[in-house]
Amino acid sequence: MSGQLSLDELCINTIRTLSIDAIQKANSGHPGLPMGAAAMAYVLWDRFLKHNPSDPKWPDRDRFILSAGHGSMLLYSLLYLTGYDLSLDEIKQFRQWGSKTPGHPEYGLTPGVETTTGPLGQGFGNGVGMAMAEAYLAARFNRPGFDVVNHYTYALVSDGDLMEGVASEAASLAGHLKLGKLIYLYDDNRISIDGSTDLTFTEDRLKRFEAYGWHTQWVEDGNDLEAIARAIEAAQHVIDRPSIIAVRTHIGYGSPNRQDTAKVHGEPLGEEEVRLTKRNYGWPEDKTFYIPDEALAHFRRAIDRGRQQQEAWEAKFREYQKAHPELAAEFQRMLAGELPEGWDSDLPQFAADSKGIATRVAGGKVINAVALKLPELIGGSADLTPSTKTAIDTDGDFQAGRYDQRNIHFGVREHGMGAICNGMALHGGLRPYGSTFLVFSDYMRPSIRLAALMELPVIFVFTHDSIGLGEDGPTHQPIEHFAALRAIPRLVFIRPCDANETVEAWRVALQHKGGPVALALSRQALPILDRTKYAPASGLARGAYVLADPEGTVELILMASGSEVWPTLQAAERLWQEGIGARVVSVPSWELFDRQDDTYRRQVFPTEVKARMAVEACVAQGWHRYLGEHGVTMTIDDRFGASAPAKVVMEQYGFTAENIARRAKALLG
Amino acid sequence: MSGQLSLDELCINTIRTLSIDAIQKANSGHPGLPMGAAAMAYVLWDRFLKHNPSDPKWPDRDRFILSAGHGSMLLYSLLYLTGYDLSLDEIKQFRQWGSKTPGHPEYGLTPGVETTTGPLGQGFGNGVGMAMAEAYLAARFNRPGFDVVNHYTYALVSDGDLMEGVASEAASLAGHLKLGKLIYLYDDNRISIDGSTDLTFTEDRLKRFEAYGWHTQWVEDGNDLEAIARAIEAAQHVIDRPSIIAVRTHIGYGSPNRQDTAKVHGEPLGEEEVRLTKRNYGWPEDKTFYIPDEALAHFRRAIDRGRQQQEAWEAKFREYQKAHPELAAEFQRMLAGELPEGWDSDLPQFAADSKGIATRVAGGKVINAVALKLPELIGGSADLTPSTKTAIDTDGDFQAGRYDQRNIHFGVREHGMGAICNGMALHGGLRPYGSTFLVFSDYMRPSIRLAALMELPVIFVFTHDSIGLGEDGPTHQPIEHFAALRAIPRLVFIRPCDANETVEAWRVALQHKGGPVALALSRQALPILDRTKYAPASGLARGAYVLADPEGTVELILMASGSEVWPTLQAAERLWQEGIGARVVSVPSWELFDRQDDTYRRQVFPTEVKARMAVEACVAQGWHRYLGEHGVTMTIDDRFGASAPAKVVMEQYGFTAENIARRAKALLG
Repeated sequence: MSGQLSLDELCINTIRTLSIDAIQKANSGHPGLPMGAAAMAYVLWDRFLKHNPSDPKWPDRDRFILSAGHGSMLLYSLLYLTGYDLSLDEIKQFRQWGSKTPGHPEYGLTPGVETTTGPLGQGFGNGVGMAMAEAYLAARFNRPGFDVVNHYTYALVSDGDLMEGVASEAASLAGHLKLGKLIYLYDDNRISIDGSTDLTFTEDRLKRFEAYGWHTQWVEDGNDLEAIARAIEAAQHVIDRPSIIAVRTHIGYGSPNRQDTAKVHGEPLGEEEVRLTKRNYGWPEDKTFYIPDEALAHFRRAIDRGRQQQEAWEAKFREYQKAHPELAAEFQRMLAGELPEGWDSDLPQFAADSKGIATRVAGGKVINAVALKLPELIGGSADLTPSTKTAIDTDGDFQAGRYDQRNIHFGVREHGMGAICNGMALHGGLRPYGSTFLVFSDYMRPSIRLAALMELPVIFVFTHDSIGLGEDGPTHQPIEHFAALRAIPRLVFIRPCDANETVEAWRVALQHKGGPVALALSRQALPILDRTKYAPASGLARGAYVLADPEGTVELILMASGSEVWPTLQAAERLWQEGIGARVVSVPSWELFDRQDDTYRRQVFPTEVKARMAVEACVAQGWHRYLGEHGVTMTIDDRFGASAPAKVVMEQYGFTAENIARRAKALLG
Repeated sequence: MSGQLSLDELCINTIRTLSIDAIQKANSGHPGLPMGAAAMAYVLWDRFLKHNPSDPKWPDRDRFILSAGHGSMLLYSLLYLTGYDLSLDEIKQFRQWGSKTPGHPEYGLTPGVETTTGPLGQGFGNGVGMAMAEAYLAARFNRPGFDVVNHYTYALVSDGDLMEGVASEAASLAGHLKLGKLIYLYDDNRISIDGSTDLTFTEDRLKRFEAYGWHTQWVEDGNDLEAIARAIEAAQHVIDRPSIIAVRTHIGYGSPNRQDTAKVHGEPLGEEEVRLTKRNYGWPEDKTFYIPDEALAHFRRAIDRGRQQQEAWEAKFREYQKAHPELAAEFQRMLAGELPEGWDSDLPQFAADSKGIATRVAGGKVINAVALKLPELIGGSADLTPSTKTAIDTDGDFQAGRYDQRNIHFGVREHGMGAICNGMALHGGLRPYGSTFLVFSDYMRPSIRLAALMELPVIFVFTHDSIGLGEDGPTHQPIEHFAALRAIPRLVFIRPCDANETVEAWRVALQHKGGPVALALSRQALPILDRTKYAPASGLARGAYVLADPEGTVELILMASGSEVWPTLQAAERLWQEGIGARVVSVPSWELFDRQDDTYRRQVFPTEVKARMAVEACVAQGWHRYLGEHGVTMTIDDRFGASAPAKVVMEQYGFTAENIARRAKALLG
């Protein structure tokens, strides 16, 4: 690294030293990755990435994901250098309160950050979702001469990403789907936090990806720009398989005492080592945040290039609008995330029926009632489609060569499904949903959390929502899951009590902005309430509403959700017959209720009514908020479910009208 | 299948028809797997499995896991037929209330069931843990001439298992560790719930396992007993790699109209198809639960064989006791799950120190204080050992050829770690622990749930337990995780407030029976309380205890856990100076507190003190139980964390003495 530096070397060392300096200033961060992976990232961004720093939301840009989010300074450096709306001052505020340069990249905060990463494996899965979204939109909207959707999805992935199961799941599906425009650069630096990957990660990575059906390449020298460029080019030409390029890098490259150590992964170099490293780079030792003019000028060419690319696309899109005005309008509507006029005009209304239907069945009918009007609605299940009832009947399966179809078979890969749904939502233009049994929401919880953190419009459909699923037993019966999902900030959890509340739940979900929605639906049939007798299901939108009141004074409030509403109503009717003034409140969603004003909330739960009982087939945790000091819960605590026919289990756990009425009376006595 | 049936065929068809009949009688269950996989399971159990039906807890038995737990009737049939304490009446009560034959196999309920399965991939991971436990115990206790620990771990795994990320993680680690005594039979039936595996699972499975470093074999005909036997034998002879044998089977084998369909996976055949299938098997069509005498007699030979095998082992063990009395005694103590005398005599006590240390650091000191006395303590981290501080300093790394060492590098595989820890606990003889950041408890949540369901003595060490971790930001900062973990029945969650509470937390965890314990430890230093001034840390065992009281009357209760205890104490001191009678309660564990009697609980939270505030850097959910009607929370709700230095984040979120005191005063005003 002595002698005159080439322009490329200047640029690459600028990325490295910016990262080093920002981390040193913050005295916190992960210098190893930016130092080791700067060259490959530079090649990708300099020679291949189609992007417009002036418009980070240009729909047809290539996506770039830094799946190894701890290397955030690599991305921030690239964003600043190529001219995104991210100032050098922000770089200097790395990891400080209120900056746009937090410890890990955050979607929505920093222009050009395509997804929030840090929890490993998630970005890997997001990329698969983005490539699926691109494939779907291209198949749906492109017309001869008009490839209005045509971009790559790139990611930089690490050893840690490849070790995570979520990445394995997503990789297997990506290979199956032959996503040819997905290209991953694997930062093969052979060091993780515990030390050498020899300690625990000695599998043959590329062979594993070959087994998944990926195109694999190996670049021996992570600083060989031409080799990296050739590999990316080759990957672009392989259109029937996703590509992974293992690039042998050296973590902390150029640091005389820290290169190839675990220490450099997650610790600032320290001032002396910063100096030594800069010297080694042929860099001014005492300057910080030093950016050679010619390097900056070279990087900033991205602005003009990107503007021209976007302008060319926009010109093409204007032609497309002329040739295919309806398609173009629909494309734009979908990208804007707006529902079309009349989208809900075919939503079903269900007649009162004491036998009823399962809310999962009602949910399936809703999906099919809106699917034709909402081409943005796309999804599937983790190999439970016949059970979760989430198939779009008018569509076929989303498969290689049939990317315009919307039924996605995610396989028994809940976590991959979650990360992929997030990726589809991040891409833009889609309203993805993923379904499985509620108990298996645990398998995809890290992705649900990220959907909430990123405020993505993903809909999670969780069926088989209680011990009421019966024979499958405790491994399949959710007990703590309502509480666990309600605990996630910004996630709206809705558990409708009958078919018509399910319609309203979907109506809320599809209109909701600001985060994901989780629906909890029953396996078993639930009576469809007679809404001439009880309040209309539209009350669901307020989270909780009075379903039934006694003729006289309200002495007692019974609140319930989902399948427990019906026995609670029956209990109330018994109580009424005995002259007891029981109110029944349906509480499908705490989050929606908590957003109502005080007046409404007090109308539903008047302060003066102290006798209250919550009835729900899950842990009590959290209900006390609505119960006051004297309220009680009829829930399932300190134990799990049991295998037996649904009716028996429900009875054994006490969820019968008789038992509810008995407990309610005791409350008054 | 016409003509005279051989004895083997009789036996195999007995498994199949028992399964079919039980499922038909229950009108619920999964017949496809038992029908398709009966032959391979029969070969394994008849010719290879070392087990004693009369003593399912014989320590040196081979382990058999039905990872595809939905095929439970296969296992119940084998258990009944080979003479375990499971009657035919129980088989007839399949999936009924109170039976020993629930929908999915449940550990602890049914003799011979080695682990609870159903959630896919978990059994796969458990098996890896069992094989690691065997390797460790063998390395530790076997002596020349005395292989007192020497058994295989077998599992039957399905397409669904192999699709789950948790299995990928565990498989990669098993290959790395060269677990030669792990042998998996893969029920390669090419059908999952959505239909053919062609829909989503077209990867080259065996190539993937080769990439992991496994020995792989392929058996073309799932009814070819000799081929299966040869493959198992070959797998046994490969001692430097785990083995997987893909056996091409046909789901619902023998059912004229359902074989090779998704329908037969999870639905009873129906009476007519049962008849047709039995006819096809050469079976009496109208008999149910029919067991040919010669088949039963053949199966039941397992009883004598198993007794003899165990007796031979016991004789050997008696010799071992003579030759190595101390080792033998320790082995027996460990198997009994008992702590030795004086195990806690070296536990550290920390002197008061206002600067203090992180509770993760204190936790590390505890591990090292007991590790030499407790060889059953074994564990590691998901590639965060330097951060979670969980290394045993006196030991090396658990690696192939060094299986007597206890520091396990799980890799960035949290979920695999969870399933493996469960497997080590299930094996017996060990107290495993696994550590990662608290936010990543989400990645392993399905395994934590199963540890709780099975009441396994696993210790989960979760560090970096709040926004107080600082710069890493919202992706790494737990917000909802306390609530989410507290929601899991039978899991004890403990968040100590300083180094001495951490010692007590570990003391509780190591003595705890009846389920797993999760410890939440801080990244940042926490002051070590002056216990001459405040109540002793031993109060932790009661879950909540009065740390400090005012001189006069208690007007107000401030409760907090972990890092929020110190600012709360400081707030109380301010209040005392103003003459306000604030009590401070340390609440490290709700679960432990809820087990205390009413008297104690009322002592801590006297009914008459209505002014209460809970201070905790997480969602409020659940605190209201301790707050009464007038209590308030000072928590983090409806938002996530932020990236900035720890002190800044804590201040910005309001967790300062000043702010706590101000809010507390408002409560009285």
